[in-house]
Amino acid sequence: MDRNYEGWRGFEGGTWVKEINVRSFIKHNYTPYDGDDSFLAGPTKDTLDLWDQVLDLTRQEREAGGVLDMDTKVISTITSHGPGYLNKEKERIVGFQTEKPFKRALMPYGGIRMAEKACADNGYTIDPEVKEFFEKYRKTHNAGVFDAYTPEMRACRSSHIITGLPDAYGRGRIIGDYRRVALYGVDRLIEDKKEQKETTRSTMYSEIIRDREELAEQIRALEDLKKMAASYGFDISKPAVDTKEAIQWMYFGYLAAVKEQNGAAMSLGRTSTFIDIYSERDLAEGRYTEEELQEMVDHFIMKLRLVKFARTPEYNALFSGDPQWVTESIGGVGIDGRHMVTKMSYRYLHTLKNLGAAPEPNLTVLWSINLPENFKQFCAKTSIETSSVQYENDDLMRFTHGDDYAIACCVSSMRVGKEMQFFGARANLAKCLLYAINGGIDEVSGKQVGPEYRPITSEYLDYDEVMHKYDDMMRWLAGVYVNTLNIIHYMHDKYCYEKIQMALHDKNVTRWFATGIAGLSVVADSLSAIKYAKVKAIRNDAGIVVDYEVEGDFPKFGNDDNRVDSIAYDIVHRFMEHIRKNHTYRNSVPTTSILTITSNVVYGKATGATPDGRKKGEAFAPGANPMHRRDTHGAVASLASVAKLPFIDAQDGISNTFSIIPGALGKDDQIFAGDIDVDLDCCVNGACMSPTLFEGLDDNDAN
Amino acid sequence: MDRNYEGWRGFEGGTWVKEINVRSFIKHNYTPYDGDDSFLAGPTKDTLDLWDQVLDLTRQEREAGGVLDMDTKVISTITSHGPGYLNKEKERIVGFQTEKPFKRALMPYGGIRMAEKACADNGYTIDPEVKEFFEKYRKTHNAGVFDAYTPEMRACRSSHIITGLPDAYGRGRIIGDYRRVALYGVDRLIEDKKEQKETTRSTMYSEIIRDREELAEQIRALEDLKKMAASYGFDISKPAVDTKEAIQWMYFGYLAAVKEQNGAAMSLGRTSTFIDIYSERDLAEGRYTEEELQEMVDHFIMKLRLVKFARTPEYNALFSGDPQWVTESIGGVGIDGRHMVTKMSYRYLHTLKNLGAAPEPNLTVLWSINLPENFKQFCAKTSIETSSVQYENDDLMRFTHGDDYAIACCVSSMRVGKEMQFFGARANLAKCLLYAINGGIDEVSGKQVGPEYRPITSEYLDYDEVMHKYDDMMRWLAGVYVNTLNIIHYMHDKYCYEKIQMALHDKNVTRWFATGIAGLSVVADSLSAIKYAKVKAIRNDAGIVVDYEVEGDFPKFGNDDNRVDSIAYDIVHRFMEHIRKNHTYRNSVPTTSILTITSNVVYGKATGATPDGRKKGEAFAPGANPMHRRDTHGAVASLASVAKLPFIDAQDGISNTFSIIPGALGKDDQIFAGDIDVDLDCCVNGACMSPTLFEGLDDNDAN
Repeated sequence: MDRNYEGWRGFEGGTWVKEINVRSFIKHNYTPYDGDDSFLAGPTKDTLDLWDQVLDLTRQEREAGGVLDMDTKVISTITSHGPGYLNKEKERIVGFQTEKPFKRALMPYGGIRMAEKACADNGYTIDPEVKEFFEKYRKTHNAGVFDAYTPEMRACRSSHIITGLPDAYGRGRIIGDYRRVALYGVDRLIEDKKEQKETTRSTMYSEIIRDREELAEQIRALEDLKKMAASYGFDISKPAVDTKEAIQWMYFGYLAAVKEQNGAAMSLGRTSTFIDIYSERDLAEGRYTEEELQEMVDHFIMKLRLVKFARTPEYNALFSGDPQWVTESIGGVGIDGRHMVTKMSYRYLHTLKNLGAAPEPNLTVLWSINLPENFKQFCAKTSIETSSVQYENDDLMRFTHGDDYAIACCVSSMRVGKEMQFFGARANLAKCLLYAINGGIDEVSGKQVGPEYRPITSEYLDYDEVMHKYDDMMRWLAGVYVNTLNIIHYMHDKYCYEKIQMALHDKNVTRWFATGIAGLSVVADSLSAIKYAKVKAIRNDAGIVVDYEVEGDFPKFGNDDNRVDSIAYDIVHRFMEHIRKNHTYRNSVPTTSILTITSNVVYGKATGATPDGRKKGEAFAPGANPMHRRDTHGAVASLASVAKLPFIDAQDGISNTFSIIPGALGKDDQIFAGDIDVDLDCCVNGACMSPTLFEGLDDNDAN
Repeated sequence: MDRNYEGWRGFEGGTWVKEINVRSFIKHNYTPYDGDDSFLAGPTKDTLDLWDQVLDLTRQEREAGGVLDMDTKVISTITSHGPGYLNKEKERIVGFQTEKPFKRALMPYGGIRMAEKACADNGYTIDPEVKEFFEKYRKTHNAGVFDAYTPEMRACRSSHIITGLPDAYGRGRIIGDYRRVALYGVDRLIEDKKEQKETTRSTMYSEIIRDREELAEQIRALEDLKKMAASYGFDISKPAVDTKEAIQWMYFGYLAAVKEQNGAAMSLGRTSTFIDIYSERDLAEGRYTEEELQEMVDHFIMKLRLVKFARTPEYNALFSGDPQWVTESIGGVGIDGRHMVTKMSYRYLHTLKNLGAAPEPNLTVLWSINLPENFKQFCAKTSIETSSVQYENDDLMRFTHGDDYAIACCVSSMRVGKEMQFFGARANLAKCLLYAINGGIDEVSGKQVGPEYRPITSEYLDYDEVMHKYDDMMRWLAGVYVNTLNIIHYMHDKYCYEKIQMALHDKNVTRWFATGIAGLSVVADSLSAIKYAKVKAIRNDAGIVVDYEVEGDFPKFGNDDNRVDSIAYDIVHRFMEHIRKNHTYRNSVPTTSILTITSNVVYGKATGATPDGRKKGEAFAPGANPMHRRDTHGAVASLASVAKLPFIDAQDGISNTFSIIPGALGKDDQIFAGDIDVDLDCCVNGACMSPTLFEGLDDNDAN
């Protein structure tokens, strides 16, 4: 095998030459940058022209009611559409999901009804032959799941004690290592996959057969990837030779993924420092100027902003918008101690200035105390100017995932190309508490959904009795929840497998079985109220507790008060222990997240009154946030409460949506010069279709 | 649940009332018949008219080159076609696979290329959209299998050491219990399946999820079955009320199966004694006359003769014709000692006279020493007149399968609705012997196919050395073979699941993992020659043994000579032991069969010269038959050799194709009055398209 690729000229060798190992390539070749942002270049004329075109199309789309064009017949695959352009002459980086920008593709594998409804709700009609074919001859993920669900699972789903399940849409949360396309070229990746297929275990157990079939699918997807790139005039069989090709090759990899999958989060990975290696070489060779490099990045980011899916109003309601979660992780620190900020980290963030603020791609800074001061300043400035930067705690995540992980969606961390996630939405722990009190009867519908455990019959709630029953009910809930997810991921693999994304993964992938929790602060405060105040149960005629009267005050989560913070800790730990007791599909490793960013509103709507005084239907706090207006001891105390939660039990991420009026933190721009100790999620993701999209978002707008 | 069905009037109760249990119904209600055939009625005018119509269509079909009409667009499902008739006014039993007789349906799930080729080879063109859909969006069994095959499996397949694998066509060999439709009506069966789904294990392991999904598919198939029957004007939700309905309901069940699956053997089961219960009641009630009953049976059998599939010339070559193996098992003895011959057993066989001889349905008498004398005489007479009766040894099979089993294909026995088979075609043990001699190099292609074991280098073959190497090579072959079948059946379940057939099975089905052996007598004689004569190896320039010279005589299998018969015994036993060492898909139970009826010609063609003096390309003997013209000690000695084979190691059946000139056995008609001790397969199955089809077959014609 010839390794003397033109694309590899001047690179320092390492393990990456012998095996697919992008991290090794980065470690041996990247140049940390400690300087400031003064080198950055503004937008070129072509960039501004293209962006004007985008703004115009965006306006047209808005005027058309949210969708400009939609495929109703061609089923989206990597090669289903011819090349699409905004303006071929001006675009440095090319490629759209369909043959033209703003046209949404037809993706029925997740569920034909969802695809049909996405068309119908936007005024389009799905081709009747396609509909018939998917109803009669080609089963979808959604159809498979509902064939296997138990009545109990359906009841839990209907009552929203388990909710947001990816059973009618793509699960997402898988990040292909798109950098591999640039570094190795597709032929080498195919060769590697063939080798992997040769080396599966030789006894044909069903899981080995599945592995072999998946590898065959992956190889075909890589072949298709080459074909798709060829339709744009590029031969990506060999490694990229410069920055422009590296970005283009990488983007083709990502583009193939979003042509194939309409996942709940289609994140990009951690690409800036990787690309920087090419641009440093190009600068040294005099191949490109800073203006040219920034132009490529601007055009790349522009493309990522234009990823679009056909979705239904209900989907958009759940996610409060039409998000793609094209999350890109920037910065962080290596396990060798060197920070990983490069000039390219600056260039990526600088697109927020050159193109204006935007929620997508979700630019996420992996924050560490050891990031260079200049970069911290630049981040702070960019945050102030655009409100469009997400921060996550690299010092915390590096411990588990090393230094080549990235964030999928908003907080789910995974080693790029080595780990993936089975996304599991959320269990509503607040409703679970009400089930414990009502012996499994749903407080909203009055139906018996949970097991017929003995309800609490006393007028005033006793803490020990409630905790005992709550623990039992959590054990039950964890069981139904995990088994439901087992079905979902089995069927997703069967009917809606992520071929190209998994082709850009190692053979032996660690799968995180990501469960999630909603309503944590409601539960903590409710139990605190029962323990430290007096809570009276108000029952309806059927004897179901439907409301609560709290007499006296009680410690509330978010005030750095151990009396209640320890309850929150305990709940997370207990629930996770119950989760761990269950079999999880495909040897996946169970985790939990506490990360609702927007859906907490929907979950709250479906939940009756709670013992903390929260009224029926009122929104939960997002993620691990304290309940609205209950954190009365200031920002630091609020953050401290969240920081006490056991990360080891919630490794999929803990989010704290935190809006700050700049003035509150100081009088100059240095707001992020300090270090924030939790996996802090200040992300601003939201309504992609919102009128504010390209006008900058208010601080409070998106959460 | 109301059990007061009109259809159940007068029936004696039993377990069958409380659970789906057709055997219990039969045991409690059937009337053994010891009389002779004098009660039988000839064909009615309508029967003769319809049959003339069939003969005319058959002639037209033959003149058209073998196919009269073919679907190229509509994908065959239970409900894909409207009702079809020969002559609605005259038909007592109705239903065709498509909307008209002699039109072959399009069945692409097994493999789109096979479906396409079946069209093309018969002068039709598959609809391009259908082709595209199955190539791009709806994977087939065939595509799945080839994704998972290893290079070794492909090599074994190409060299024909493993051959006839059901990897591009439907595996067949599954018998739905079609009687259930008549006895219980579809609603009760759906209710039962729903109950089964409710009672799967509750931890969602992948195999439980698969079970639940399959049960959901089964329930849908039963709903479709009702719809299909309704299109013919029948409500089959309730039990059949008389013979006509019982046959019609049962036939609808079978018809649904052949609308859904183009399996290598689509057998009917064991229905005559079941139907007899209805006809005895009808006769007692004066509802139908003997003429009317025979007419229904004639029309039913006529329908079974007209089951047709779209197939390729290669498929037809492998099976020497275009067989459907609509095997119906008749007679046998109950474990309570009562024989199970009824008037209906006579009526079924009598169709061979009323309609003329035919290879389909494959009417199979389960022969026992305890069958009533009159029935034995009747069978003998029918055999002499029609050469169209297959006999199998009930006394042998009853031991394993009880008294409600039936034969699938030609010898595969299984309890109806309780056991099914994973069909596995055959390993070529003769070629395996040559691999042992040549160290895994294929004697025809010269390629290294098997493992690179040390070849035999001596000029003259030494028995112990050959046996030692042969045992090693068989161990290897058994491993590749079983793993290949594991892939095939995994993919068949995944992409081409037999919904309606499995809907007519119990929840907990015993699955036989049916391997098969080809070339047994060649191997036995070869080893005998090596042991008792002198065999000289003739090598080509590459050092590969390509021919053998036998010096002296040696005992040959088929002459009741223990010296060689014990070798045959030993080979079957050893190979089966090697098979058993492997993991088999879905907890299936490994078995072997020795039953090539026709394909032995194809297998022989692909095999080099063997040490028994057989020349390269010469046909093997069929099944467990002695090699042609080597059984020199008469029929009884020949049968005795076969009878020594270990049935416990070859429970899927041992066939001995045995052609007899009537005069050879005696001077009158009583040729079958004795008892034949082996699982004797005198079946006459063959070219459905052959000109002789409806003109009676010569004794030597079909085998």
